[in-house]
Amino acid sequence: MDEAAKKTSLRMIPYGLFVVTTRHEDAVGAATINWITQVSFQPPLVALGMKGDSATLAHAKTSGHFAVNVLGSGQQDLAFAFFKPTALEDGRLNGYEVESGAATGVPLLLDAPAWFECRLTDVVERGDHHVVVAEVVEAGVRRDSPPLTLAECGVFYGG
Amino acid sequence: MDEAAKKTSLRMIPYGLFVVTTRHEDAVGAATINWITQVSFQPPLVALGMKGDSATLAHAKTSGHFAVNVLGSGQQDLAFAFFKPTALEDGRLNGYEVESGAATGVPLLLDAPAWFECRLTDVVERGDHHVVVAEVVEAGVRRDSPPLTLAECGVFYGG
Repeated sequence: MDEAAKKTSLRMIPYGLFVVTTRHEDAVGAATINWITQVSFQPPLVALGMKGDSATLAHAKTSGHFAVNVLGSGQQDLAFAFFKPTALEDGRLNGYEVESGAATGVPLLLDAPAWFECRLTDVVERGDHHVVVAEVVEAGVRRDSPPLTLAECGVFYGG
Repeated sequence: MDEAAKKTSLRMIPYGLFVVTTRHEDAVGAATINWITQVSFQPPLVALGMKGDSATLAHAKTSGHFAVNVLGSGQQDLAFAFFKPTALEDGRLNGYEVESGAATGVPLLLDAPAWFECRLTDVVERGDHHVVVAEVVEAGVRRDSPPLTLAECGVFYGG
């Protein structure tokens, strides 16, 4: 296979940026991701690629739940804040205000313009990231915003 | 669940447009899709949502192979051409020139700026669309182009 062509063609898939949040007993987790797509209308399902060795994936699998916080245009700082290890201090997640999701108890970022809570249904463990399939069970919109895209950030994660 | 919020939040996931092509014995298939994401670097895996009752999905499952033709900015006509039933006439697929992919024998659209051939590895059958996980086994780039996005077309498929 032509590795350069593989990289170029896969990098033509457009992506947004999202913070996946989790809660397992007293521990909370959060990680910025871009590999996500809807995969069904009825029931509403999404599929995500999540790092196989990540605490966020371990939490999601153990608790069976996670949330996807959808970032808005201009929120690069919020995206980059969750590339770092997660810390919950004074009720703030890496410094950002959160509330508990009604359906799952998972922390939701108040700054994100929209979010959805998910119930994990299937995991395909085949690569360095695992494929997580999940049903959307609750959702909310805080304000109108175009999404933050990888293109807006000028970075790639893929290829 | 707030259905309007679910629709709005899920529609904030950015998408490109792609034509999935298949070959099973003498039959070829093609369908325009947007639900796709990379899900692993090593091996290079992608996950797609494909209509559960589609001939394209049936072909991909039976033959174990398909290709993803990545559409470029301005190629709305090419995207819309494969919402229609597929016909191969005089070596053209719905009127567009094709060649056979070296790895899979699947038809590749010469007009698409990039493509990758895939070997199907897993299927999750849970919703009205099925989740197809596949390894990228060959890829090519015909010309430099930004991708065609759903936003450029002014349409949504999701929510």
